[in-house]
Amino acid sequence: MEADLLGEKAVPQNAYYGIHTARALDNFPVSGRPSSPRLFRAIVLVKKAAAVTCGKLSLIPGPVSRSIVLACDEILDGALQDQFVVDALQGGAGTSTNMNVNEVIANRAIELMGGQKGDYSLVHPLNHVNCCQSTNDVYPTALRIAAISLLRQLSEAYASLQEALQAKEQEFADCLKLGRTQLMDALPMMAGQEFGAYAKAVARDRWRLYKAEERLREINLGGTAIGSGLGAPRAYIYQVTEVLQDLTGLGLCRSEYPIDPTQNMDVFVEVSGLLKAAAVTLLKIANDLRLLASGPAGGLGEYRLPPVQAGSSIMPGKVNPVMAEMAGVTAMRVIANDAAISWAAAGGQLELNAFSPLIAESLLESLEILTRAVQLFEQRCVRGIALDRERCEAHLRQSTVMATALVHHLGYELASVIAKAAQESGRSVEDIVLERGLLTAEQVGEILSPLQVTKPGIPGK
Amino acid sequence: MEADLLGEKAVPQNAYYGIHTARALDNFPVSGRPSSPRLFRAIVLVKKAAAVTCGKLSLIPGPVSRSIVLACDEILDGALQDQFVVDALQGGAGTSTNMNVNEVIANRAIELMGGQKGDYSLVHPLNHVNCCQSTNDVYPTALRIAAISLLRQLSEAYASLQEALQAKEQEFADCLKLGRTQLMDALPMMAGQEFGAYAKAVARDRWRLYKAEERLREINLGGTAIGSGLGAPRAYIYQVTEVLQDLTGLGLCRSEYPIDPTQNMDVFVEVSGLLKAAAVTLLKIANDLRLLASGPAGGLGEYRLPPVQAGSSIMPGKVNPVMAEMAGVTAMRVIANDAAISWAAAGGQLELNAFSPLIAESLLESLEILTRAVQLFEQRCVRGIALDRERCEAHLRQSTVMATALVHHLGYELASVIAKAAQESGRSVEDIVLERGLLTAEQVGEILSPLQVTKPGIPGK
Amino acid sequence: MEADLLGEKAVPQNAYYGIHTARALDNFPVSGRPSSPRLFRAIVLVKKAAAVTCGKLSLIPGPVSRSIVLACDEILDGALQDQFVVDALQGGAGTSTNMNVNEVIANRAIELMGGQKGDYSLVHPLNHVNCCQSTNDVYPTALRIAAISLLRQLSEAYASLQEALQAKEQEFADCLKLGRTQLMDALPMMAGQEFGAYAKAVARDRWRLYKAEERLREINLGGTAIGSGLGAPRAYIYQVTEVLQDLTGLGLCRSEYPIDPTQNMDVFVEVSGLLKAAAVTLLKIANDLRLLASGPAGGLGEYRLPPVQAGSSIMPGKVNPVMAEMAGVTAMRVIANDAAISWAAAGGQLELNAFSPLIAESLLESLEILTRAVQLFEQRCVRGIALDRERCEAHLRQSTVMATALVHHLGYELASVIAKAAQESGRSVEDIVLERGLLTAEQVGEILSPLQVTKPGIPGK
Amino acid sequence: MEADLLGEKAVPQNAYYGIHTARALDNFPVSGRPSSPRLFRAIVLVKKAAAVTCGKLSLIPGPVSRSIVLACDEILDGALQDQFVVDALQGGAGTSTNMNVNEVIANRAIELMGGQKGDYSLVHPLNHVNCCQSTNDVYPTALRIAAISLLRQLSEAYASLQEALQAKEQEFADCLKLGRTQLMDALPMMAGQEFGAYAKAVARDRWRLYKAEERLREINLGGTAIGSGLGAPRAYIYQVTEVLQDLTGLGLCRSEYPIDPTQNMDVFVEVSGLLKAAAVTLLKIANDLRLLASGPAGGLGEYRLPPVQAGSSIMPGKVNPVMAEMAGVTAMRVIANDAAISWAAAGGQLELNAFSPLIAESLLESLEILTRAVQLFEQRCVRGIALDRERCEAHLRQSTVMATALVHHLGYELASVIAKAAQESGRSVEDIVLERGLLTAEQVGEILSPLQVTKPGIPGK
Repeated sequence: MEADLLGEKAVPQNAYYGIHTARALDNFPVSGRPSSPRLFRAIVLVKKAAAVTCGKLSLIPGPVSRSIVLACDEILDGALQDQFVVDALQGGAGTSTNMNVNEVIANRAIELMGGQKGDYSLVHPLNHVNCCQSTNDVYPTALRIAAISLLRQLSEAYASLQEALQAKEQEFADCLKLGRTQLMDALPMMAGQEFGAYAKAVARDRWRLYKAEERLREINLGGTAIGSGLGAPRAYIYQVTEVLQDLTGLGLCRSEYPIDPTQNMDVFVEVSGLLKAAAVTLLKIANDLRLLASGPAGGLGEYRLPPVQAGSSIMPGKVNPVMAEMAGVTAMRVIANDAAISWAAAGGQLELNAFSPLIAESLLESLEILTRAVQLFEQRCVRGIALDRERCEAHLRQSTVMATALVHHLGYELASVIAKAAQESGRSVEDIVLERGLLTAEQVGEILSPLQVTKPGIPGK
Repeated sequence: MEADLLGEKAVPQNAYYGIHTARALDNFPVSGRPSSPRLFRAIVLVKKAAAVTCGKLSLIPGPVSRSIVLACDEILDGALQDQFVVDALQGGAGTSTNMNVNEVIANRAIELMGGQKGDYSLVHPLNHVNCCQSTNDVYPTALRIAAISLLRQLSEAYASLQEALQAKEQEFADCLKLGRTQLMDALPMMAGQEFGAYAKAVARDRWRLYKAEERLREINLGGTAIGSGLGAPRAYIYQVTEVLQDLTGLGLCRSEYPIDPTQNMDVFVEVSGLLKAAAVTLLKIANDLRLLASGPAGGLGEYRLPPVQAGSSIMPGKVNPVMAEMAGVTAMRVIANDAAISWAAAGGQLELNAFSPLIAESLLESLEILTRAVQLFEQRCVRGIALDRERCEAHLRQSTVMATALVHHLGYELASVIAKAAQESGRSVEDIVLERGLLTAEQVGEILSPLQVTKPGIPGK
Repeated sequence: MEADLLGEKAVPQNAYYGIHTARALDNFPVSGRPSSPRLFRAIVLVKKAAAVTCGKLSLIPGPVSRSIVLACDEILDGALQDQFVVDALQGGAGTSTNMNVNEVIANRAIELMGGQKGDYSLVHPLNHVNCCQSTNDVYPTALRIAAISLLRQLSEAYASLQEALQAKEQEFADCLKLGRTQLMDALPMMAGQEFGAYAKAVARDRWRLYKAEERLREINLGGTAIGSGLGAPRAYIYQVTEVLQDLTGLGLCRSEYPIDPTQNMDVFVEVSGLLKAAAVTLLKIANDLRLLASGPAGGLGEYRLPPVQAGSSIMPGKVNPVMAEMAGVTAMRVIANDAAISWAAAGGQLELNAFSPLIAESLLESLEILTRAVQLFEQRCVRGIALDRERCEAHLRQSTVMATALVHHLGYELASVIAKAAQESGRSVEDIVLERGLLTAEQVGEILSPLQVTKPGIPGK
Repeated sequence: MEADLLGEKAVPQNAYYGIHTARALDNFPVSGRPSSPRLFRAIVLVKKAAAVTCGKLSLIPGPVSRSIVLACDEILDGALQDQFVVDALQGGAGTSTNMNVNEVIANRAIELMGGQKGDYSLVHPLNHVNCCQSTNDVYPTALRIAAISLLRQLSEAYASLQEALQAKEQEFADCLKLGRTQLMDALPMMAGQEFGAYAKAVARDRWRLYKAEERLREINLGGTAIGSGLGAPRAYIYQVTEVLQDLTGLGLCRSEYPIDPTQNMDVFVEVSGLLKAAAVTLLKIANDLRLLASGPAGGLGEYRLPPVQAGSSIMPGKVNPVMAEMAGVTAMRVIANDAAISWAAAGGQLELNAFSPLIAESLLESLEILTRAVQLFEQRCVRGIALDRERCEAHLRQSTVMATALVHHLGYELASVIAKAAQESGRSVEDIVLERGLLTAEQVGEILSPLQVTKPGIPGK
């Protein structure tokens, strides 16, 4: 039985959380999922940094500081994870999440001091664990920490994907195939070039993620409730940032105008926008591979994706591009999360954004699922892609795409006539040109060289 | 030179609009495009209905009523269109658009009464033309009228598209081809069935549009500023609705609780959501056709879309599926407009939605472009689709999709082994089954009949 | 150790799932969350209906049918829930989810027949449990069943919310307050009217949800892989639909052209669009209440929302509108899910939509969280709203909104001058009118009656 | 009468465009609006650069090159604008837009050479004007040029807005007011700090736009149809980039792997994402100002926005925050355009993105409307904001927000009790503390100093 401003309320005997968490459990049984463990963990890091600093500055008693730090360390080592329970979809700008952490740490610290859970005279969730803090500086700071560490994992996943694509670029460097625009036969190209273009796009994603990290480093810890810093002495503000840098190993820095990051969530919109760009690229690559590997009989069939599971419960022998599809659904979920983040960020009013929990959950989910999807797609799909050289050769041979090489020699209109004649008769562009005596065999050999045609320049000139 | 609460302001000599419009032109040079002509026209219809009613009830003098009606009629016949000038992107819940109409009608009515433009003692934009009205009931009412009339055009466009698809369903009813799931060879089907499925989806869209109209019929005219009806006598409210029904020929009805539709824009979110569903279907069909007609050499090539323009400025003879692509970009634009409408609708506060101009412009644009895209797609693409029966036959023959028919006879695992063997050897499922002595030739003939396989049931049982 | 087309693979000893699920676990560790329990349950219902029907038609042996039904019943009663494990974000159009169910049921049925898990000669996951079915008809059918049952719960939640709002409409029916448009003082209204408008909007949502159910009733069960029905005898198709009607108690009906619903997901876009409209309304109401209850000192403060938890970890005594905020984040999540559904639905190609798992998870999540959010918002916020009549009265008294009532008597311009004078001097409209001798005291009394002003008509005429 | 591959077609006598444009006019009467003039202009710049380069390299005859350049210059000076007519919503990856420019330039160049329009033997739209080019390198290059020049204008607009906000930060630096979180009274702050936070957010937008420009500089000109460069000699590729740098004055650079930017549109998704972040910030600021200026009687009324037009057609004297609303609708339109861009970019397939016209139109519209909205919002709203110091003072005085300053002295729980008592009794926190003898008057004076409370630290410690 605990009490707050609103009255008394029972808390489960064996719970480490307290009345504020218990009320939140009653108020927000919405998604049935707790807030992200990544976020809880990052909040615990903030709590530890604050306890260290407050202890050093005698803002809380030494033994209290030490027991809070000890409790934090236990949790960071994996203890009490089942005590972090408030729902992912909650009102209140993250207050319930922060309260949940305050209470669990306080109760464990009380035990470590030899007390009984609930005896807040020993360690108080708010006066001690939350000392010099507000949800409004703790929560966005923790979100930045969680996001940066996930960004780094995502970045590594992208580096591997880029490498895998580049390996295919090398492997398929010498195979001529048809390039298509608007799904129609366009020009010859090398199969390797296809993967080279994917690798370049992925490299851009990596660079963007690297830049995104920069944007997230500025934290508003010390700004407390509205960013003005009430309740947080200047010495604390400077020191807690340094301690947190040490604890996290991230290049965090103190905001010089914390009123701004306390109320403005545009940075998360920006980062989510970069993730969306990455998702769009991933979706494009995955869709291309599904298309190029379609078949086996009635599709393009130029590539074969590695089979990873039976594809159908009714069609025996069917194997589907499920890893590319998985990449696709993940990309779409990231795009949808970007919508959630934009809505929530735009919903901010005056000195705070009440919808920051939706921003946090959506952003962290995007980072986590994108990381896993990129890893799985790379390992279980891209690495094992095989090329059907015969099919590539056949498609190219049957096409009339060499006609473009004639434009500089015969003009666009005449080249069009030849292309059309070739298509309609099923004969090659070369044949038509020779038959009509438009160029000599030697010229044709020079101009209509598929290899030349994959490079800059005007073959035959 | 005219004057309002804020002071004096010059208005162009030859303009029919007045000071309120002039201020709006200064305040909102944002998109460079005026509000939708459809919306202006619908507002003029409302003004005419109000003038008729107010005249009848002696709320404005008879001659004033008559000259307003006359001015409205001229405009509805096409006059003064260049006087409707306020920007599509404007603040103010449509007030500037309403004011623009009030002023143009008043000035023309003044002329018709023999006065000089600007002599509002004869006909006043607010006291007379806007009599018993507020922007807040006029604007949503006019939007509903404009939307319903566009919905009907769209519905006709969809009816034609459905017909065109059904014609293809008939035309291709007897052609066996490969059905594909997840882009991989799946089961035989009839080419006609492909178009039958499109036609069914389009029929659903038509039905939805029909339902959407129902939702839009309830108007808040007479609710005035906040829906409470201040300034609009009950007799006026009843009669103006009837007059408007007559003028528009639409089954409009009076809201019984106009405070609700004055502030809530959910109906437009709903209608836009239905348009989005229609757009998703259109995009799916257009994408399918692009894919099935891809090639000519290196694609699926089962259909040929009618060529409508040269496809490339550099590749001679190239023809692209531009009508299907046009359907695609239009569908995407409709989907984006749906986002705009949701944002604007959710931005409503208390007794009004200040962002209704964005709702209006986005919804009317969606309706107009979707109508034209569906018409063009139907006439310039669907109607002219041709089937490459040989290609269909070849794809089917080369595939191993008949293996599914074996499941009920040999079990899923054995059928898988046969399918795999067929794929790897390039031989037919039939051959493998016979070679392994799993079934008699007669059984095989019965079970592996492609035609049977396109219908419900277990061939051979 | 089990085997499939791709080779052998170990499956955990105590698992009820088999090799297909095990492969899916390897392939799709993306979100870390299994597919929706609602969806699994609905698939089990489909399996039971199929087993009953296949048994009756002797398509599978009677004892096999009976043991499958028994296994299904156990699961429907709550057994083996931890065996439904494939990830919510998966490639493959739901095949892994369907396989997971097939395997768990088969293994439990084997046990019930006295066999050992894995001895698929007794009950086979595909040949028996999946008999006459494909993922491609099972999965969309199950999604419809799950969606309809959730829709009904949501509908009930909305009915309660509507009631709660109507109760407030009654309770506050006699309290005059300020109506605001564009956040500026507009006209007097009754506090009850505010809630009346909310109740009306919510009633529309209910009606929409009811309509949405109609759209979902048409199932493609029996269409198997591409909707053509291969492997599903006509007798089975008719009977399984009936059995499923009985089992679910829902008015399901057989699609007459199952090729269409097998590939087209527009119905889910439509239903999600209706949920989005409902979410927009919920967001608008929640935002309004937050605004009207803002303060206590520096806000509008016309209503007081019931306090449900302490609002701040640093600001003592602060109580925040967390239930309305929770409604807001839920609404935003529903809107984001709608984006996911549109993307996934538009990604369908040819005879199937490979992204249907994203549609399923997003739609079911939207239904579940919206239901809970509406219930919690109603019970913990709306029911307990209190009115600050003094504040309402003060706001109205200090305003100059009565000036609108003068328009019909003095004209818009003169009324503007009076309103401006009142605002600038801080005096009442009444005073200014009397002072200037524009109307008699009696006229003023009649015209400027706040109660009259909340109703249709022209006070004083 | 002109002819192409598909046959003959009449072109209007006085038109400067030719058959390709005429066909596009028939095919795409969708939106009724031509492509963006910005885009047409940028394409003309590309054409001029190509003509200069091709002339220098003798790829086209000198007189042809010179007359093309002359024609381009005339157009860049404003001639023939009405000849750029193809619809904004078109299929074909921009081919029709490129063709339109090719034809108009060719026909004007023919005239300049003394020929008759249509005599393409003199200057040919494709062989000469489009020499060494493809739509697929011209169109994305031109889009980048148009986007960069608009970005610079937008950046200047943001610089002015930042300045205007900073001017208000200074002007209101000494005015104490209430800070609010979750719309509830939170802590005292300076009015200037509110604007300081806005200015900071806007500064971030500027920095982002600056970064966005970097991303856009890499052009694929010379890549021709699929980025491989067929038809574009290396010398041309190097030189045309330099010429274009000179002509545009932008730091454009040649892509080293043009296959990538020819098919991947992620850069536009990224830039649009940054614009969306800017839009979210603009929306937040505009919404805040509307809220803080609400009233005049029944709102927060702490600021007064400059009146720019009459607010209502029925409510005399009403003035609305229309400039902030205009900023809002523009922001929402930018957010919706971001959705369009994401859809179109994700729709790219293989070597090209067929939906690039939607990307182009949406991105350029976002840039243009955001620029104008920011300028107008700054000039007609922000610059003229006035502060109601009395209202600010009153709100603060009536609140109990000083209680937070007590936490470090009395603990969170006791401070809560005091805050609650103050709220319920309507008395000040100071009074309650003194009455209960919790602190001395001197302590209270030190601790409860509003000015101290707006700064970091613990007042009284």
